[in-house]
Amino acid sequence: MLERSFLIEQVIEAWQKLQANTPLVQCITNQVASNYAANVLLACGASPAMIDNPFEAQSFTHISSALSINLGTPTEQQMQAMQISAQTAQQYQKPWVLDPVGYSSVLKWRSDMVDVLLQYHPTVIRGNASEISTLAGNQSSSKGVDSTLSSDAVYAQAQNLLQHCDCVAISGASDYILSDEIRQVIKINGGSALQPKVTATGCALGALIAAYCSVTSPMLACVTAHVHFAIAGQLAAERAPLIGQFSVAFMDELFSLNAEKIVQYADIELLG
Amino acid sequence: MLERSFLIEQVIEAWQKLQANTPLVQCITNQVASNYAANVLLACGASPAMIDNPFEAQSFTHISSALSINLGTPTEQQMQAMQISAQTAQQYQKPWVLDPVGYSSVLKWRSDMVDVLLQYHPTVIRGNASEISTLAGNQSSSKGVDSTLSSDAVYAQAQNLLQHCDCVAISGASDYILSDEIRQVIKINGGSALQPKVTATGCALGALIAAYCSVTSPMLACVTAHVHFAIAGQLAAERAPLIGQFSVAFMDELFSLNAEKIVQYADIELLG
Amino acid sequence: MLERSFLIEQVIEAWQKLQANTPLVQCITNQVASNYAANVLLACGASPAMIDNPFEAQSFTHISSALSINLGTPTEQQMQAMQISAQTAQQYQKPWVLDPVGYSSVLKWRSDMVDVLLQYHPTVIRGNASEISTLAGNQSSSKGVDSTLSSDAVYAQAQNLLQHCDCVAISGASDYILSDEIRQVIKINGGSALQPKVTATGCALGALIAAYCSVTSPMLACVTAHVHFAIAGQLAAERAPLIGQFSVAFMDELFSLNAEKIVQYADIELLG
Repeated sequence: MLERSFLIEQVIEAWQKLQANTPLVQCITNQVASNYAANVLLACGASPAMIDNPFEAQSFTHISSALSINLGTPTEQQMQAMQISAQTAQQYQKPWVLDPVGYSSVLKWRSDMVDVLLQYHPTVIRGNASEISTLAGNQSSSKGVDSTLSSDAVYAQAQNLLQHCDCVAISGASDYILSDEIRQVIKINGGSALQPKVTATGCALGALIAAYCSVTSPMLACVTAHVHFAIAGQLAAERAPLIGQFSVAFMDELFSLNAEKIVQYADIELLG
Repeated sequence: MLERSFLIEQVIEAWQKLQANTPLVQCITNQVASNYAANVLLACGASPAMIDNPFEAQSFTHISSALSINLGTPTEQQMQAMQISAQTAQQYQKPWVLDPVGYSSVLKWRSDMVDVLLQYHPTVIRGNASEISTLAGNQSSSKGVDSTLSSDAVYAQAQNLLQHCDCVAISGASDYILSDEIRQVIKINGGSALQPKVTATGCALGALIAAYCSVTSPMLACVTAHVHFAIAGQLAAERAPLIGQFSVAFMDELFSLNAEKIVQYADIELLG
Repeated sequence: MLERSFLIEQVIEAWQKLQANTPLVQCITNQVASNYAANVLLACGASPAMIDNPFEAQSFTHISSALSINLGTPTEQQMQAMQISAQTAQQYQKPWVLDPVGYSSVLKWRSDMVDVLLQYHPTVIRGNASEISTLAGNQSSSKGVDSTLSSDAVYAQAQNLLQHCDCVAISGASDYILSDEIRQVIKINGGSALQPKVTATGCALGALIAAYCSVTSPMLACVTAHVHFAIAGQLAAERAPLIGQFSVAFMDELFSLNAEKIVQYADIELLG
C-alpha cells in the first residue's frame, strides 16, 4: 500500500525535476487554449512549443520530451498532425497525453479521431467526468465541452480505460487518478470553484501532465500536475475572489509553488 | 412608448435568467477573440463552446442555445461551418448573432460571405459604426477592423438592415440598438475609452448578445449585453486606469454585476 | 559616429509619431501570439489587424502601413497569405518584418518558407539568437522555439543577413541591432528575466517593430521597439515579481511609456 507521506515526497521530487530539466513539451491543442497552456507550462517550469502542422509533426515529436494532444477545436491539418505525432511518440517511447475534449455522440468527428488515437497507447488519458464516462462506454451527457457529471460518480467506471493507457486522470471538484501501477485510486482535493470559470484550465492541465510525464512515472506525473493545480487554485482564490484577478493570481501561484507549500497544502487521499 | 424604468427591470430579469440557465453558446469566432470571448461568457454566466469545424457544425448548433458568428480571421473550414451553423440555427429557430468584422470592399472574401449569411436571417447584426454603415449600403471607410466613424452618425442609416434581422446593435462611445419590436432607438452610454484598447471586446460582446438571446427577446438581449459591458467598463476604468490592470478589472466587473449595480449605473436613453 | 543622446532623441520622436499616427499593422502570426500581439500593439499606440487569409492578403497589405510575418504555428493558408503579403509589401514599398520562429533543420517546412520569403527583402529580420544564428548559416541548436544561445555570442555572425534585409534585430538578455545605415552595432540592455517566461513576447516585439517601421527608419524602428519593451519589462518587474502580475504590469508599462521614462531608463550602447 502506498503511504501518503511517500507520495508527497515523490511529488516534491517531480516538481524539482521539472524545474531542473525544463522539458520541451509539444502541444497540439485548441485555439482557445494555445496561449494559456503555453503560459501555464512556462510558469510551471517547462518549455512549450505549439507545433501542430502535419509537415513538422514527426521530426518535432522526435526531439520533444513529451506530447500533449487536445481535441478542443480541431482542424483537418491538426487531425493529421495528431496521428503522426501520436504514432511517433509511441515509436520513440515519448510519453503523451490524450485530452478527448467534448467526446460525445454529438461531436462525432473528433470522437472518431479519439478512437483512432487510442491505438497509439497514450501514456495518460485525462478529461472531465462527462468525457471520461462516455469514453469508458457509458451513456453520458455533457454541456458542450463542460461536464454535467461529478467526478465522484464516474471514477469507478474509468477502470476499463486502463486497457488503452497507463493512467487515467479525471478532473472535477475532486480529481481522481487511476493507474495499473497501484491498486488504489488516488483522490486529490483542493483547487477552487473559480477554476472552471477560467477557460482552458483543463486543457492546460493536460499539457502540464505531459510535462511531468517526462520527469517521473505516469501515475506520479498525474498526481503532481493535479496537486500543482489544486494548490495554486486554492491559494489564488484565498486572495483573489473575482475571476479576473483570480486568473492572474492562479498564474502567480503556479509559478511560485515550492516544497513547503506542497507539504502544507497537498490534499491527497488513497482510496480502497 | 417604452419606459426607461420598465427596461431596467427587464435587463435585471434577463441578467438573472442568464445566471440561472447557463446557456450553451456556440461561437465560430476569430483566433484573436477565441480565448477572450470564452472567458467573457464564463464570467457573465454562460457556457461557451468554440466549435468551428464544418463536420460537427450541424449537430452542435442543434444542441446549442444560441450561436455567435464572427468573421474576424476566417479560414475556409470556418466559412463552411458558418454556413452550416447559420442554416441550422434558422431551421431550428435558435437565435444567432452575426458580427461582420471588417465588412468593406477591401476585405471582399469575408464581405461576400456576410452577404450569403444574411439569407439565414440573423437574430441580431452587431458591429462597429464603419461595418454597420457599409453593410447598410453606404460608402464608408474603416481602418482595418477598427471603425473610423462615430456611432452617433451612423445609427439612422442602419434602419434598412432590419429587413435582414430582428435587431441591429452598433457599438461605439455610445451604443445604439434598433429593433422592429419598438419604434424607438435605444441609446446606451457608459463604458470607457480603454475598452477599444483591449482587443476583441467587440467580438466578445457579440458572443454575449447571443447568450442573452437565449433567455430574452432580441431587443432586450442587445440592451442587456450592452448595459452589462457599459457598467463593467465604467467601474473597471474608475479603479484601473492602465490598460493591463483595466483588462483584469473589466473581467472582475463582468463577473460581479448585480441588480443593484444595474439600477445605479445603467444609462439608457430612448430616442425619437 | 552616432551619439547616444542623438539616438535617445530619435527614439522619443519615433514613439511620439506612433502615438500620433496609430498606423494600421497587418499581422500574419501564430495562434499563441495573435491575441497578445494585438493587445501589445494597441497598448503601444498602433492599430492591429490579424488578416491572415490568402484571399484578402493582397488588398489588405496594400492599405496597411506595415506588415509583420511570424512563422510560429503556420497553416497552409497562412503560408499562402505570407507569400502574397510579402510580395505586395515589397511591390508597394511597405515596410515588413520577418520573424523566423523555430528556424532549424528540425522544422523544415517553415524554414523552407522563410528562405522563400527572403526574396521579398524584409525590412527587418528579427529573432532570438538560435534562429538568427541558424539563418545566418551556422550550425546551431534550439529547444523548440526557445533559444539555447546567448545573443552576445551571435550578433557578429548576423552581419551577412544584411544582404537580405535592411536591419537585423536579435533579442535576448541584451538585444543587438545591426544595420547598413550605420557601421556600429547597437546594444540595448534592460528588460527582465521574466519576459521570456511570458509566451509570445518575442512575437509581439516583431509586430511592434513593424509598427515603428511605418513612422521611422528601420534601424530606429528596431531601437525604439526594443527600448519600449526593455523599459516596460524593467519597470514591470520592479513592482510585480510573479509571472501573472508581471504580465499585467508589463502591459501597463507598454501603455504608459513617455519621453521622461525614455530619457531616464533607455540603456543603449554603441559598439565598435
